[in-house]
Amino acid sequence: MQPDNFDIVIQGGTLLTMSADMQIMEDAVVGIRGSRIELVATNLRPAANKIIRADGCLILPGLINTHTHLPMVCFRGLADDLALMDWLEHHIFPMEKRFVNKEMVYDATMLAMAEMIQSGTTTVCDGYFFENQIAAAIQACGMRAVVAQGFADFATPDNPAYEKMMAAAGRFVKRWKPYSPMITPAFFCHSPYTCSPETLVNVKAAARDAGILYMTHLLENKQETATVEQRYGKKPVRHLLDLGVLDKDTVAVHCNWLSSDDIDVFAALDVKVSHNPASSMKLAAGVAPVPQMLDRGITTGLGTDGAASNNTLDMFQEMNLAAKIHKAVSLDPTVMNAATVIRMATIDGARVLGLEGLTGSIETGKLADIIIVDMNQPHLTPLYNPYSQLVYAARGADVKTSIINGKIVMENRRLLTMDPAQAIRNVRKIAARIAPEPTPR
Amino acid sequence: MQPDNFDIVIQGGTLLTMSADMQIMEDAVVGIRGSRIELVATNLRPAANKIIRADGCLILPGLINTHTHLPMVCFRGLADDLALMDWLEHHIFPMEKRFVNKEMVYDATMLAMAEMIQSGTTTVCDGYFFENQIAAAIQACGMRAVVAQGFADFATPDNPAYEKMMAAAGRFVKRWKPYSPMITPAFFCHSPYTCSPETLVNVKAAARDAGILYMTHLLENKQETATVEQRYGKKPVRHLLDLGVLDKDTVAVHCNWLSSDDIDVFAALDVKVSHNPASSMKLAAGVAPVPQMLDRGITTGLGTDGAASNNTLDMFQEMNLAAKIHKAVSLDPTVMNAATVIRMATIDGARVLGLEGLTGSIETGKLADIIIVDMNQPHLTPLYNPYSQLVYAARGADVKTSIINGKIVMENRRLLTMDPAQAIRNVRKIAARIAPEPTPR
Repeated sequence: MQPDNFDIVIQGGTLLTMSADMQIMEDAVVGIRGSRIELVATNLRPAANKIIRADGCLILPGLINTHTHLPMVCFRGLADDLALMDWLEHHIFPMEKRFVNKEMVYDATMLAMAEMIQSGTTTVCDGYFFENQIAAAIQACGMRAVVAQGFADFATPDNPAYEKMMAAAGRFVKRWKPYSPMITPAFFCHSPYTCSPETLVNVKAAARDAGILYMTHLLENKQETATVEQRYGKKPVRHLLDLGVLDKDTVAVHCNWLSSDDIDVFAALDVKVSHNPASSMKLAAGVAPVPQMLDRGITTGLGTDGAASNNTLDMFQEMNLAAKIHKAVSLDPTVMNAATVIRMATIDGARVLGLEGLTGSIETGKLADIIIVDMNQPHLTPLYNPYSQLVYAARGADVKTSIINGKIVMENRRLLTMDPAQAIRNVRKIAARIAPEPTPR
Repeated sequence: MQPDNFDIVIQGGTLLTMSADMQIMEDAVVGIRGSRIELVATNLRPAANKIIRADGCLILPGLINTHTHLPMVCFRGLADDLALMDWLEHHIFPMEKRFVNKEMVYDATMLAMAEMIQSGTTTVCDGYFFENQIAAAIQACGMRAVVAQGFADFATPDNPAYEKMMAAAGRFVKRWKPYSPMITPAFFCHSPYTCSPETLVNVKAAARDAGILYMTHLLENKQETATVEQRYGKKPVRHLLDLGVLDKDTVAVHCNWLSSDDIDVFAALDVKVSHNPASSMKLAAGVAPVPQMLDRGITTGLGTDGAASNNTLDMFQEMNLAAKIHKAVSLDPTVMNAATVIRMATIDGARVLGLEGLTGSIETGKLADIIIVDMNQPHLTPLYNPYSQLVYAARGADVKTSIINGKIVMENRRLLTMDPAQAIRNVRKIAARIAPEPTPR
């Protein structure tokens, strides 16, 4: 072992850097030392402690899931084909009240990690209850994450009263901030219809003090506008604007019913958007005006939402749907293209989470969050356009190897930082309490 | 080996029979002798020459792809994010003219077979040029197929003149009919805007004489109505109705712009429909009114269309999209449910192809077309509702083992009737002629 060796070198294959100029390199070489990318080149054969061959593969930045609720994998497939509010109020909220606890959240997050690593995600943004346990599980698996402590004006499984929520949130930030940029704390207000103006404002003030992101579900379904208008005499985006909670460190999730005026506000204030097509399609909640947002330069990332409404955490499915749904509803196939979708799933996702200086592209100086996709397969043959192939033909199961922060977390489909069989057993035990018998309909 | 042994017994797991009463059996046993299912039971341990363990798996009828153009895998990803007519007239038709020949069609079909078997398809309905070569490749791989000789009023790569087309079609039927129900011939008129009334009528007459199915693309995009109206003074469905080509043995593909009057016609005449959501979403061609068709009892199957417009042949993706797109455009999550989608992909697909007495469900007396899906995976855990899990969480790569006509064609993901590596090499050679360099955009 020579002292100037790289720790890891990825050798061969086609590299999609996702740099500003969308550089693509054949016979690529990526050299990693510690957590960093220190070499991006072609036609070189540098020495390394570990060489990963990528011939016939695509090498690209790990995918960034900008919105999910990880422990909801426990509710995957339990209540489908229902309207959003029916699903939420008669199925999800009651089940969360009964079954969400520290142990459930930890075990479920471990299972979610297996699924996400196996489908190419290297950074995830989560918002749920018992976020300390979620962060701990993520940390154990070596994934990069933004973990958002949730707020709502009703008793949540982890926090019965508003005052206690704020105190707990302070402790949460203090506990996890030292681990950034592996685990980065954030705050998450559930929505303008479940959080009072006071909560929305106070949480944003606390987020600004802590220098962290502030998130909220926004305009997921059509009725939200009427609800907020009735209560506050204005539409949701105007309501948030007047409360002063919209800025470049605010991430609005869903935005299915964003009007063109709302888009103006978002563009002017550089508000970020997380687009979750699978979940919104399945809940029939609406289709976000993403082509219009992108035209106005609004930074938009992709998210899977929770597995109860998706029902997977597979960013390849999310890319596929993001590429297709806007064509379908506009009857214009040119409103979204494959390269744009890959940007949303990588570098733009990093921008949404404020991590664009660290991840989201493969460039020297960045942290090594990299996936290798095996294209030596019938359904990925032939290969004319790598972006098209990833978006329209590949699926999560085609990710062969994954590196996060310079550490190999999956190699040739084998997970190295966790035991998926154990995670499956643990969640099956929880599921047996939730629904003792399978419930086909 | 005892003489009364089954040839194959599938033992354990959860069986989705897709019988009329949607029976589901735990700890299932399926006994196969020759090409037939001879036992469907639970809690038995019969003797067999070959036992396939399916613990923790779902066992279901193999998926039925009711519409594709198999050799178009050669054009996968070559021209995406374009409008249908631009894509067809400036990319696909010129490429077909230059590159489609007997050898290309055979090699490409072999690759398509690998992709389809690996994603759970056991019956496919194809329509393209050089259909003899396609049928031969399908036969070599042991897949069940309806192979449709194509007709259009322009010179096609395999047939320069109409008169020769009709004679060739006669020979085609004669050649393949003896192999039915493994290989069943059919006729395919490209569309009411590329086939003259004479062609539409003559081909239907020949199909009736031969007792075979008659197919046509119909109302894929919005402009088709204006085109046909301008030329014939009536809308496409009325045009076909007046020509007398609509009946229970006619399969109309796409039907994105079917009006409620058209639906009445289809319901009255029992015309069958092939719904291809992925392709129509990607081409922004429109969304078929499938919930309305199903309400009127129109038999509707799923199809992938060709890999140039999809860009896969994965029926799991097709099921996922069929379940989601109708929710998204109607804003009603109850218009389509998972069980209905699985029916479209199995028994109703069989009905579309006139094969419902032979395949599409797992019942004694039917031919053994069966897939086993491995649910022992993080993204398929927990399992509450098998239909939901298959439609919303599973993907083609989760199919572990596949049996067609009583023969194991894939076991533990290994293809037994073909060499996928060879198929990949052959198609890469063709692709290198089509586009010498990758063309990222």
